[in-house]
Amino acid sequence: MQAATYTGNGAITLSEAEPQAPGAGQVQIAVVYTGICGTDLHVLHGAMDARVTFPAVLGHEMSGVIAALGDGVTDWAVGDHVTVMPLDWCGDCPACRAGNQHICQNLNFIGIDSPGSLQASWTVPADTLVRLPADLRLDYAALVEPSAVAVHDVRRSGLVPGEKVVVIGGGPIGVLIATTARHFGGEVVVIELDATRRAAIADLGFTVLDPIAVDQVEWVTEWTAGAGADVVFEVSGAASAVLGATALAKVRGRLVVVAIHPTPRPIDLQRLFWRELTIIGARVYERVDFETAVELVAAGVIPASLLITRIEPLDRTAAAFAALGAGDALKILIDCQAAPTAPDDLSALTSTPAGASK
Amino acid sequence: MQAATYTGNGAITLSEAEPQAPGAGQVQIAVVYTGICGTDLHVLHGAMDARVTFPAVLGHEMSGVIAALGDGVTDWAVGDHVTVMPLDWCGDCPACRAGNQHICQNLNFIGIDSPGSLQASWTVPADTLVRLPADLRLDYAALVEPSAVAVHDVRRSGLVPGEKVVVIGGGPIGVLIATTARHFGGEVVVIELDATRRAAIADLGFTVLDPIAVDQVEWVTEWTAGAGADVVFEVSGAASAVLGATALAKVRGRLVVVAIHPTPRPIDLQRLFWRELTIIGARVYERVDFETAVELVAAGVIPASLLITRIEPLDRTAAAFAALGAGDALKILIDCQAAPTAPDDLSALTSTPAGASK
Repeated sequence: MQAATYTGNGAITLSEAEPQAPGAGQVQIAVVYTGICGTDLHVLHGAMDARVTFPAVLGHEMSGVIAALGDGVTDWAVGDHVTVMPLDWCGDCPACRAGNQHICQNLNFIGIDSPGSLQASWTVPADTLVRLPADLRLDYAALVEPSAVAVHDVRRSGLVPGEKVVVIGGGPIGVLIATTARHFGGEVVVIELDATRRAAIADLGFTVLDPIAVDQVEWVTEWTAGAGADVVFEVSGAASAVLGATALAKVRGRLVVVAIHPTPRPIDLQRLFWRELTIIGARVYERVDFETAVELVAAGVIPASLLITRIEPLDRTAAAFAALGAGDALKILIDCQAAPTAPDDLSALTSTPAGASK
Repeated sequence: MQAATYTGNGAITLSEAEPQAPGAGQVQIAVVYTGICGTDLHVLHGAMDARVTFPAVLGHEMSGVIAALGDGVTDWAVGDHVTVMPLDWCGDCPACRAGNQHICQNLNFIGIDSPGSLQASWTVPADTLVRLPADLRLDYAALVEPSAVAVHDVRRSGLVPGEKVVVIGGGPIGVLIATTARHFGGEVVVIELDATRRAAIADLGFTVLDPIAVDQVEWVTEWTAGAGADVVFEVSGAASAVLGATALAKVRGRLVVVAIHPTPRPIDLQRLFWRELTIIGARVYERVDFETAVELVAAGVIPASLLITRIEPLDRTAAAFAALGAGDALKILIDCQAAPTAPDDLSALTSTPAGASK
């Protein structure tokens, strides 16, 4: 079979790979769809070269069907529809012992630190499986993983129904956070630079601000009758957004930092102090977030048809990365069971995305 | 009577002032002691010139005796020993209506935004009074206000007994936070650059690190068996301390920013994300913090004799500010009832202190 592998220097190539028979406690999955996300682009841009083993099979936003069970695997059957929570923790570090296995100090993030799902067959520990309803479309189900990120972010924010929420950045994770926060009772406004994205987000019924045209602080102050927002999600990755985010929050408001900020960012600590703000880090998800995400995707809360720009076959993975890197798509799914197509341009990418990391 | 007033350009002078008869709902206090703090020094250095009305009577860490009651004041009697929680809130802004009166969006901080206690007689709203036990030494009682800051900071941290705590900066507020956190069950280490301060803090039974001699991250990692500290208090005001503080905290650890940081500071948001840290702003105090602080001072938990370097008469206030600005003392109390002494050097100050602001 073929696998899409990152071989360094910004290159994705197709490699021959052997399907792995499941060992004890493992399952073998026929991967149907794998979504490509901002983290995959960061990997492609070399930001995580110290973590990957070349050639690296990327991919962790997926849906599929169980093809085979290893010894000792109960509760699952061949043919079950599944997605995977791609976290493999040590169970023994201080974070794990304190109950924070999802951010284990020795975490193996499957799809970065070990092979991912951009291949027709993927073998993973059975305890990473998350059950999908049999009638859930598998293309939509590939959005469960990024939706779980959003659910986790909203849960970390401590959102209470009726609270006013600002989401800075309207990429896929920003849209997922906005829809999730609205579903859980938040009144949400999204700030987004790109006009095309703004229009799509407005179509979902959100108020969307162009930060160039509108004074955000003034707008939010008026919107909240002088209080400021209860919760601000920073999903843009921009230094200026982080610096300005504290000005949008009310007294005792919460700022959740979701985007990747690879270098230290200036933060207005005077404002943090003055309003007794809280800044909250949020990373990946816990099982409860995945289970909620399955429900939200199945219920149609997640705007899957908006987010999935298109579906490409596995041998067009490099082109899909290029399109995402260029900002030409929100979410592209790779059909990992597709028949081969004509050879494609596998050229390197240069643009830098923002988004959640792992 | 005389009052010590800030007249701008770094100058403290003695001015004649009229004692104010208490109006309805007010009390007149014979001020016995007023402590000088880092915030007062910030005022003197011009950082709050937009807030003060010249000539400005500073001072808000005080103890005294009720001298007269205005109309309608019940529950209090002439002769009662009191301190003052110097917050006068509007009651009508979004913060007040949400129950956060202590950080009211229109807060009048008495001693900055309106006249303070560096005078023999001070008239304040009766509802700012906090009762002192009759047998509590009034010099020690002048430490209730800064102790309330520390109690509030510790409470904001969510400290649980048995947790490991790092206090960065061993000035007066750092020492108060360390002693309060220890009292409430924390295991505390203090990081302090100054050798004299380190020795004094060690005399209180704390482990104290010299950040020049010791690799803090390595030390804390070993101390916590690889986990990192549960809570880190940033009390130094140094940009490098803020940048480094995130590296000391465990997964889901809390960083409380206590010191003044007048300009935006680079924060390691990658670490915030990776470990799901929380950064917490903490400002002033609530009544419960004041009441706890009275108990801690009365019980001898607060190391009053260490903190109070000396007591000076009111007409030596400028010299006291100079000594504090030069780092020659931890806490100097002004005896506001003292007889006049010889004229003193009222020269300007230039050094920059760190500490809690209001």
